[in-house]
Amino acid sequence: MRSPEATDRSTSLTARNGSRITLAHGSGGRSMRRLIETAFAPLFASPDSEADHDGARLEIAEARLAFTTDSFVVDPIFFPGGDIGMLAVNGTINDLAMCGAKPLYLSVAMILEEGFPVESLERIARSMQAAADATGVRLVTGDTKVVERGRGHGIFITTAGIGQLRQREKIDPGAVRPGDAVIVNGDIGRHGIAVMSKREGLEFESELLSDCASLASPVLALIEAGVEIHCLRDLTRGGLATGLVEIAESSGQHIRLVERRIPVGDEVRGACEMLGFDPMYVANEGRFVTFVPASEAERTLSILGRAFPQANPVVIGEVTDQASGTVTMTSVLGVERIVDMLNGDQLPRIC
Amino acid sequence: MRSPEATDRSTSLTARNGSRITLAHGSGGRSMRRLIETAFAPLFASPDSEADHDGARLEIAEARLAFTTDSFVVDPIFFPGGDIGMLAVNGTINDLAMCGAKPLYLSVAMILEEGFPVESLERIARSMQAAADATGVRLVTGDTKVVERGRGHGIFITTAGIGQLRQREKIDPGAVRPGDAVIVNGDIGRHGIAVMSKREGLEFESELLSDCASLASPVLALIEAGVEIHCLRDLTRGGLATGLVEIAESSGQHIRLVERRIPVGDEVRGACEMLGFDPMYVANEGRFVTFVPASEAERTLSILGRAFPQANPVVIGEVTDQASGTVTMTSVLGVERIVDMLNGDQLPRIC
Repeated sequence: MRSPEATDRSTSLTARNGSRITLAHGSGGRSMRRLIETAFAPLFASPDSEADHDGARLEIAEARLAFTTDSFVVDPIFFPGGDIGMLAVNGTINDLAMCGAKPLYLSVAMILEEGFPVESLERIARSMQAAADATGVRLVTGDTKVVERGRGHGIFITTAGIGQLRQREKIDPGAVRPGDAVIVNGDIGRHGIAVMSKREGLEFESELLSDCASLASPVLALIEAGVEIHCLRDLTRGGLATGLVEIAESSGQHIRLVERRIPVGDEVRGACEMLGFDPMYVANEGRFVTFVPASEAERTLSILGRAFPQANPVVIGEVTDQASGTVTMTSVLGVERIVDMLNGDQLPRIC
Repeated sequence: MRSPEATDRSTSLTARNGSRITLAHGSGGRSMRRLIETAFAPLFASPDSEADHDGARLEIAEARLAFTTDSFVVDPIFFPGGDIGMLAVNGTINDLAMCGAKPLYLSVAMILEEGFPVESLERIARSMQAAADATGVRLVTGDTKVVERGRGHGIFITTAGIGQLRQREKIDPGAVRPGDAVIVNGDIGRHGIAVMSKREGLEFESELLSDCASLASPVLALIEAGVEIHCLRDLTRGGLATGLVEIAESSGQHIRLVERRIPVGDEVRGACEMLGFDPMYVANEGRFVTFVPASEAERTLSILGRAFPQANPVVIGEVTDQASGTVTMTSVLGVERIVDMLNGDQLPRIC
């Protein structure tokens, strides 16, 4: 048979600085084994993981589960306040939390482009492990593929997650009711602008960091406190506006926002004005909305306030009895206008 | 804010032939919604799926679960006997089956390259649904990202799967014992050569089709019949040789193969000779090895024979009492040589 041309390039993997991913690392053979054992060693160190196996065996006490997946293609992969690995772990943790589930297990599938620096891969793996540890989830199974140069973009990560549902009543747009308070856990737009600033080489007076964070513990704290949660939504792609429009359309309810209550930091506001973005559509990775009966708003604010002391959770609007399936926003001047989804491209395009 | 430049290009999505993926389809806004509702409609039609939600809620009777993930980057995406969608569903079904689990739920995450034909996407979605239906698994949650032209390669699909473990004893290299029979369910190398032939424009006298298939029902048939399965392994990347070397190394056992018993079809053998490949290392997508006590071999062959009437399951070797952690193969001339993993690149590179 043909002699495998990539052998020489790949043998240097474990030791030298500056080593790069070769196609051999995706071959299923010896080089891939070595890559998994070194770069990914911190990643799958848990007792549930099955290094010799393509699947993990799990024992879960109660079988009301949530299951979710997300691919991460952020560019640049390292940005102020986080990286693609942290994002891939927290993003899936947050999707589970938004179902009202305690995140338990994650899978990690990577698509690497030939030439990707092994050092970056190791840094990302460490960051994933740290994010998983912080929420107490376990990375139990994984996969790695390598594509030829020019057929990928450094690294793409797809995570899937399993969590245990903790609230018996469905947390869902269908549960939204007139009178519900709409609460956001902090100021919006930091993640999108942090990524954009890194990409465009913008500088701010103080460093603007991504809001990327795990939302599991604040959501579980609300559930444990017995707060009657109607709906949760993390404000990722498409930002606050898109998340709320989706909920309004699915539930058929009318959400009325008060513009001056929507928290936007000065740096984000300044960057948005300069770049021509609307912070309502900018992606977040640690911000979410909670729909609760108005009577529960104060308790919710106090629990979220303890979880996000810097971020200042706030009631930004309410569900009216107009059942229009739309979102409107009352401006500072008292004018009410419709808030719609973006019809075209996301700006900035950062996921 | 900036007017979204991709709007015009994306509005034609649902109707016209020849429409293509734009970045707007990955934006989280209106265009993405429309894409999900049209192209992916057949994909998430099950009652468990949560169209308005980023996660699926699952109720599983018994909570001994298997969990697995795989990314699929095959090129070309349509090949004789299958396509990337069928592969992505059956590949994860098979990983679950190899754990001794009944596959139940799958997630589907797609990374699309700008410009990818929507027609191809719809064809792939139909193929995924057909593969899921054939095994009775449900596609319950998903994600779609779009990357700029030149930063991906048409379509990458990552599936993750949850299954219910059906055999109480672990199916694992650690359970392999001296005296075990090593059984393969059919002739090897068809998938790799079918993909390669399509890519290189090779022609055979009769059409050579990929062996891509679900392995769930034959494995579950073995378990239901009470066959004492020690280990299972599907022979994907790296082929039969790599799968067996991994099992030998993990278990510390010695696997002795008999070369003339290893089934290789005439077209595959011919293509391998022409291209300089060794069929032992060529990928399969519907072939697996089963390790059972020698006393169970006949029963296993008969169950697999019913499941794969065309493929002729056969005993290809045994586990000896030498505990060397290696694989050897006895040639037609009686010479015993060591079988190793590939050290470098996979040939042909098809996953």
